[in-house]
Amino acid sequence: PGWSARTPMAIVPGLSCEHAHAPDVMRGEETQIFGVMQIAGVRDGCFVLPGTHSKWAWVHDGRIQRFTTLMTGEVFAALSQHTILARTVDPHAALDAEAFLQGVDLAHTGQGLLHHAFGARTLALFQRMSAGALASYLSGLCIGEELRTMLTPSQKLVMLIGSPALTQRYALALRHRGVQSHVFGAESTWAGLHALSKMLPAPHP
Amino acid sequence: PGWSARTPMAIVPGLSCEHAHAPDVMRGEETQIFGVMQIAGVRDGCFVLPGTHSKWAWVHDGRIQRFTTLMTGEVFAALSQHTILARTVDPHAALDAEAFLQGVDLAHTGQGLLHHAFGARTLALFQRMSAGALASYLSGLCIGEELRTMLTPSQKLVMLIGSPALTQRYALALRHRGVQSHVFGAESTWAGLHALSKMLPAPHP
Repeated sequence: PGWSARTPMAIVPGLSCEHAHAPDVMRGEETQIFGVMQIAGVRDGCFVLPGTHSKWAWVHDGRIQRFTTLMTGEVFAALSQHTILARTVDPHAALDAEAFLQGVDLAHTGQGLLHHAFGARTLALFQRMSAGALASYLSGLCIGEELRTMLTPSQKLVMLIGSPALTQRYALALRHRGVQSHVFGAESTWAGLHALSKMLPAPHP
Repeated sequence: PGWSARTPMAIVPGLSCEHAHAPDVMRGEETQIFGVMQIAGVRDGCFVLPGTHSKWAWVHDGRIQRFTTLMTGEVFAALSQHTILARTVDPHAALDAEAFLQGVDLAHTGQGLLHHAFGARTLALFQRMSAGALASYLSGLCIGEELRTMLTPSQKLVMLIGSPALTQRYALALRHRGVQSHVFGAESTWAGLHALSKMLPAPHP
């Protein structure tokens, strides 16, 4: 609300950080995070941006302190399109919440995606799950593995930023794991571009 | 040794078993396992058959009691050929043992392949690892994840069956994790086909 041709905006070049084993990078998600800080009036929290490369960022006092990338969306796409699972999984099927949460629960056991993904093959072979449900099951395995490795017991609320189709799945999985989420969409980008213009020094005339 | 046109052989149709969450299947690996039992004179143990779909089978008193499939080889291929990693990982590079074991160690932390695989992207972006070393690193992450989820502290020895290129990597990773392996190759198939002919009832004339 209130956007016009005169609304000032600014862009930033992205962020990198160092994990013990490898660096990490984001480009664009920081703008969405700044936008949600502005929209929601928060300066602290855990921000989750699901996608091809999901980002989890921890913000303290208005600054992004650290973040982690997970290849969740791209691994789901690669598994469902470029492995034996492509024969039986329909990656474009609508969400089957029951099969999805079955995958989330299974991922939580920590036995690993390498084994559990093969279940999406055998459940089809034995005709125990339909192609549509299998896609949700595999999606639940992938997103559940992300939650297993990223959630800590003290995390009770996350800011979830992304497309409706993805944030719906993440919100469902998070709630299933006892975590609340506040959901934001494309508005985070516009608010972020505007917020940045107020944070950055004025440009040279 | 001792094979001739008159050596009797037999084939079997494969095995299935039930996990709590999904069934599992193998087709061919059981023959190789029977072959190694015959060659090595063992009737108990853990048999590991790395590949597109790796199999871990536990044998007791000459019978396969249970087994588990992991999509390790296929996930490595999909990651290195059908994700952003394809830009920087050379999947056909020779083994770089140091980078490989770095990946194995990282997988052992249990933080998950979804995150660590992205390191193969950022290490390239920051020019900290070559395309050849990155392939070994990613391979170590995948095989290391398999070992993390499958090895138990009491497992000190496995029978490793497969192609030299794969068994070399698995033997290296297993030794790194304190597990000995006895390695078998194509001879396991022939010995298995022969062993089966002695186990099965004689055919009708």
